[in-house]
Amino acid sequence: MLQNLKGFRDLLPEQKRKKDFVINKLKKIFEIFGFEPIETPTLEYANLLLGKYGAEADKLIYAFEDKGGRKVALKYDQTVPTTRFLFQYQNQLPRFFRRYQIQNVFRAEKPQKGRWREFTQCDIDIFGTTSPIADAEIIAATYFSFVELGLKDIKILINDRKILFNCLQKYINPKVDIFSLIQSLDKLEKIGETQVIEELKKKGLPKNLSQSAINDLKTVKITPNLEKIINCAKDLGVKKEAIIFSSFLARGLDYYTGMILEVIDENFNEGSLAGGGRYDNLVKQITGIDIPAVGLAFGLDRIFLVMESKNLFPPILQKKVLITLFEKNNSFSLKIAKIIRQFGLSVEIYPNFDKLEKQLKYADKNKFDFVIICGEEEIKNKKIKIKKMKERVQEEVDFDKLENYFKRP
Amino acid sequence: MLQNLKGFRDLLPEQKRKKDFVINKLKKIFEIFGFEPIETPTLEYANLLLGKYGAEADKLIYAFEDKGGRKVALKYDQTVPTTRFLFQYQNQLPRFFRRYQIQNVFRAEKPQKGRWREFTQCDIDIFGTTSPIADAEIIAATYFSFVELGLKDIKILINDRKILFNCLQKYINPKVDIFSLIQSLDKLEKIGETQVIEELKKKGLPKNLSQSAINDLKTVKITPNLEKIINCAKDLGVKKEAIIFSSFLARGLDYYTGMILEVIDENFNEGSLAGGGRYDNLVKQITGIDIPAVGLAFGLDRIFLVMESKNLFPPILQKKVLITLFEKNNSFSLKIAKIIRQFGLSVEIYPNFDKLEKQLKYADKNKFDFVIICGEEEIKNKKIKIKKMKERVQEEVDFDKLENYFKRP
Repeated sequence: MLQNLKGFRDLLPEQKRKKDFVINKLKKIFEIFGFEPIETPTLEYANLLLGKYGAEADKLIYAFEDKGGRKVALKYDQTVPTTRFLFQYQNQLPRFFRRYQIQNVFRAEKPQKGRWREFTQCDIDIFGTTSPIADAEIIAATYFSFVELGLKDIKILINDRKILFNCLQKYINPKVDIFSLIQSLDKLEKIGETQVIEELKKKGLPKNLSQSAINDLKTVKITPNLEKIINCAKDLGVKKEAIIFSSFLARGLDYYTGMILEVIDENFNEGSLAGGGRYDNLVKQITGIDIPAVGLAFGLDRIFLVMESKNLFPPILQKKVLITLFEKNNSFSLKIAKIIRQFGLSVEIYPNFDKLEKQLKYADKNKFDFVIICGEEEIKNKKIKIKKMKERVQEEVDFDKLENYFKRP
Repeated sequence: MLQNLKGFRDLLPEQKRKKDFVINKLKKIFEIFGFEPIETPTLEYANLLLGKYGAEADKLIYAFEDKGGRKVALKYDQTVPTTRFLFQYQNQLPRFFRRYQIQNVFRAEKPQKGRWREFTQCDIDIFGTTSPIADAEIIAATYFSFVELGLKDIKILINDRKILFNCLQKYINPKVDIFSLIQSLDKLEKIGETQVIEELKKKGLPKNLSQSAINDLKTVKITPNLEKIINCAKDLGVKKEAIIFSSFLARGLDYYTGMILEVIDENFNEGSLAGGGRYDNLVKQITGIDIPAVGLAFGLDRIFLVMESKNLFPPILQKKVLITLFEKNNSFSLKIAKIIRQFGLSVEIYPNFDKLEKQLKYADKNKFDFVIICGEEEIKNKKIKIKKMKERVQEEVDFDKLENYFKRP
């Protein structure tokens, strides 16, 4: 099959450069906030992953038997493998462990627009403390990551799971448990009040109770804990307007225990750009050791879409130089390449003895920024011709003034 | 199972930083040499991979059936998926396509020291030309990559498959084909002449013929093609002493057609640090389109070992600052963090209200370079205390002189 698998993708150079561009900016901010990089394997024992994300997710896990008869599975997210990591290296890790992890995960979902079976997750988490300062650090690291990417106007929706639990406890019944109720109310922004009430009615909650639950959430006050977190985030430099208390925000996963947050861009309707929260029980549930945690995952693919739509990628991610080649004195072209590479430029030597016209066509088609012509005449005069392709300008530069010409301004 | 799979590994922060250090240096040189980054999926159709690397390798491929009944396999190397890539995007790629690819591959080998079931491959290849300049560019990019890593004294062993074919054709027989003969002779450096002759005798080549083949290879002359390649590499800046013509060099894979090369460090006996060559037929065999190619793969794990043994990693890969926290005026610590992060330093805020002693112990244990103390007294005097942990020195810095203090020299 000379075809990639459905739901999987190849990245062409421009796409890969853009991906690296985003990842490098995220890494820079993660490092500034004291997060440290780790890596875990692509494959894990299947029983580490199965049963950790709910029955629906289990169906999406790529699990199989390896040649040694072990049941193995491809990573589904970063969080569960990281709990194993925390357990395995507990004596080597700092008490307050901040880690970032940028790796691919795999989900056998139905391929559709913007949904891939292999995609890169960027996670930041702080383990080992329940301090609201840790929550605030996650908010601040998130905020500054988006600022670094040029997305200064994102909004961080924030809520506290405890608000939801306290507010909604009285409305649950044997048919509608707290998580089911939360999941329906989470859709309020998207599908509207009438639809949510309808959905809850079908689940088994009478209309008047749904209405009352919605009203309760509309008027509920922020908790002191969340207030403290938001104030700390502001001290850390997050703009006031960026944080919005949103009592209907719920997040899908069941394991959150405190603050939950989601990053949205108001001009982008295809979901949140990042999401996370506090999960103080998960590590204990999986490993037996009591490690509270707070963290967030960036949705790289959606961030890409937003950045594309706002033209936030630099037009040129790598300046390229093509050096022409002629049979006579061809070693001169190589020597020029050697010199110009010392200035840090990306240099390709045209490898065949084709006519200049053909070489220039190649440069044009493949978006080179400069073409260097060094034929017989140029060598004789100890000059080279430099064509700026975009500007359609040609200059002559003395051999010994090349460095000045190419040095970054 | 709270354990990673045998043959797979986790990277702790220091290891991951070292890996990123090496990869960033390689990327820098690859970009300077005009190589462009691409990515292909971790999973491919199994029948793209099976049968491409030989029967032995097929056993090492992680192949399984996905939930849609497709036979899929984890990437075994970069080259075969890239041939698919060349086919699939043939209309979008430059005629002379230089790509680099740094991704993980999977081999179900018996786990042993230095051999992993998942490891990172770094490949550079030039497609679309048989020009010796392309071969030389691969040599030069390889050479400068090692120089960039601090491994200036590596040797590049070079040979031409055509030399082996021409020299040895007359010695083959129905029991010992050309590849089998080459594979035994390849071991000469490692196991010595007597052993090689013994091995070939077992395969079915009489002793006198083996001896004669060895003598032929010892005295064989370099080809004009290889001479041209080496001269071009020198023009591109490769030191003369770094390239060594080695007529016994063979390389394992059958698909090479011209130049073959291997990078060794004379103080390191556990195999080559990089290897590759020209393979003009492989893309055609797999895809039907005629694209000559030359390239090389870097063995990241071995490069690590050599760099460790030569102390080539900087002692500090990221300078870390810890900011202490006290209950009174704790928001001041956050504001200091905000300021110092603007200078690009990695800053962690101690999250709990512990005694200063405990906070300093934490800094010591976790190798922070600076600790910033900002308690009540410091705030009053508009100064902060900065402890340099390694030097065991403490300084007082005015609040408004922080930038000067931390600015890079």
